[in-house]
Amino acid sequence: MPLPEFRRDPLHHVWVVFAPERQRRPQDYAPAVRNAETIDPFAEGNERLTPPEVFAIRKEKTKANEPGWNVRVVPNRYPALRVEGQLEASPVGLYDRITAVGAHEVIIEMPDSNLALEDLPVPRIAEVLTAYRERFIDLDKDTRFQHIYIFKNVGPSAGASLAHAHSQLVALPLVPPAIEGKLLRARAHYETKQRSLFADILHTERTDGARLVAENDAYHLFCPYASRFPFEMAVFPKRHHPDFASCAPNELLYLAEVLKFALLRLNAVLEKPGYNLLLHTAPLRRPNTERYASTRYDYSWHVEIVPRFNSFAGFEIGLGAYINTIYPEEAARFLRGEAHA
Amino acid sequence: MPLPEFRRDPLHHVWVVFAPERQRRPQDYAPAVRNAETIDPFAEGNERLTPPEVFAIRKEKTKANEPGWNVRVVPNRYPALRVEGQLEASPVGLYDRITAVGAHEVIIEMPDSNLALEDLPVPRIAEVLTAYRERFIDLDKDTRFQHIYIFKNVGPSAGASLAHAHSQLVALPLVPPAIEGKLLRARAHYETKQRSLFADILHTERTDGARLVAENDAYHLFCPYASRFPFEMAVFPKRHHPDFASCAPNELLYLAEVLKFALLRLNAVLEKPGYNLLLHTAPLRRPNTERYASTRYDYSWHVEIVPRFNSFAGFEIGLGAYINTIYPEEAARFLRGEAHA
Repeated sequence: MPLPEFRRDPLHHVWVVFAPERQRRPQDYAPAVRNAETIDPFAEGNERLTPPEVFAIRKEKTKANEPGWNVRVVPNRYPALRVEGQLEASPVGLYDRITAVGAHEVIIEMPDSNLALEDLPVPRIAEVLTAYRERFIDLDKDTRFQHIYIFKNVGPSAGASLAHAHSQLVALPLVPPAIEGKLLRARAHYETKQRSLFADILHTERTDGARLVAENDAYHLFCPYASRFPFEMAVFPKRHHPDFASCAPNELLYLAEVLKFALLRLNAVLEKPGYNLLLHTAPLRRPNTERYASTRYDYSWHVEIVPRFNSFAGFEIGLGAYINTIYPEEAARFLRGEAHA
Repeated sequence: MPLPEFRRDPLHHVWVVFAPERQRRPQDYAPAVRNAETIDPFAEGNERLTPPEVFAIRKEKTKANEPGWNVRVVPNRYPALRVEGQLEASPVGLYDRITAVGAHEVIIEMPDSNLALEDLPVPRIAEVLTAYRERFIDLDKDTRFQHIYIFKNVGPSAGASLAHAHSQLVALPLVPPAIEGKLLRARAHYETKQRSLFADILHTERTDGARLVAENDAYHLFCPYASRFPFEMAVFPKRHHPDFASCAPNELLYLAEVLKFALLRLNAVLEKPGYNLLLHTAPLRRPNTERYASTRYDYSWHVEIVPRFNSFAGFEIGLGAYINTIYPEEAARFLRGEAHA
């Protein structure tokens, strides 16, 4: 079986990771039939069904890989990236190749099979965010990695393959194109204006107000001006910082509060839609990489929540543009509870 | 109701078209229940159910908007873009806005409700491609438009909302980011090498051979080195030209042949998967727009066929990168018929 690798061609210039561990036979590409009776590998008591945990928040005197945990982080059993191996980047004629060294982990958000993240009390959601931060700090030590990204797929429309509440973490040996673009634009904005792009967006949203959904002591929640998805929301911290891992415990509590609010409002307005939650932070800062040295002032970590109703179709895939059917000003009115269907 | 518009923010820098014509109430965002009993608006005899046709290939002595056609092009009843109105680009504080002036048309590929494009004989598929070309030539006259794109969504996994075989055309008042990127990279390649990127990719694929699927007198069919999707295929013309509309009738016949072959092979290997077909051509060349003047040598129109098995999930949406589970070398072996599951 060929080794996993990243590939890029000079026409599309996007990285594709080939994950032969996940490879199936052609007939298996037909949509999977979900069997509701299958055993939940993430439930309490089934710890032996996952690889050994790399982090957990546990009740006192409980042992690793046994019951008694609130949050549990394990390597993905079907990883897109492998921790083992040397990092090696090379040309293949016109094309580019990098060995798919990295980490692919699952953050199991709770022992219960039937609850959603937003059903947990705020301090329990903060424990999930604490697990995110601890994994950032630990994986930052591995100098082969350039970028860490945490995301959550909820519901089949958002690409989820397991119903038990979980998030995924990937540590990558490169900075992906969408992140590179955001960094470069934020840098250019700072160099032109001597102001953070994130601060300027928040200033604009607070001045206008039509797209604001909520705020607490540490965060603003709003529907972006150019929302790609219906009812898309962004969470920007009031204290801008490139690294999510810089969050203090009380900042994680406030983040838990605003995420819970956002997801509950989404459920109330749209009857539990599928969604992705995306946690964006700056690429890992490495000694001698000047490239991201200045992100201290010009970039900020942030969260995006994107409800998923329609498949990506030929328009989105071919153009990198989006069709949205509701203006964010109207979505925000529904999410604030001022409009009713 | 607010007017349709394109919006862009400086962080993501992608254009989003807001299409209030397509707007629904929040409860309507739940997945639509398909009713197999509903009337097919694209079937022969139901011409009154669509807006009046803008082009058709008809049997002699039949009248517009009556039965007797092979291919019929009509405006989309739920357009993302409107033909009426002035083109106006303006800043909105930090953000960008363009009126959503454009065309959004449907190419109804056949009168029959139950056949797929690949079921038609090659000359009939060439008639569909002729309709594409005629609409390119006609819409190119409208100087408000910058780019024309034709795509096809087949199956729910690929975003199709109607089963009757059809393609869609959009004429846009801007060049979308994915197209801009391809153009810039092809230009840079030409300036460095004095060779077309498309010719160099074809040379590489013909020399290697592992990813080639088929060829005829006018086209090569291959699985790209960095295929984003399992069993993705590209069709490159042997005669590179920026404009699809430059195709002669026999080039459309050869294209029909290679597309029919590709789709039949896909069906044979994967049991009729959902897919998108994407027809990429250079942006419309306008007097006084130097920007794309040199595309004569450095860019070529081309077709991509992307089977769709999985939803876009948090990985793809957040990073602009892809996970693929089969190497193109292996996909090509299946598509050539050398490997069997």
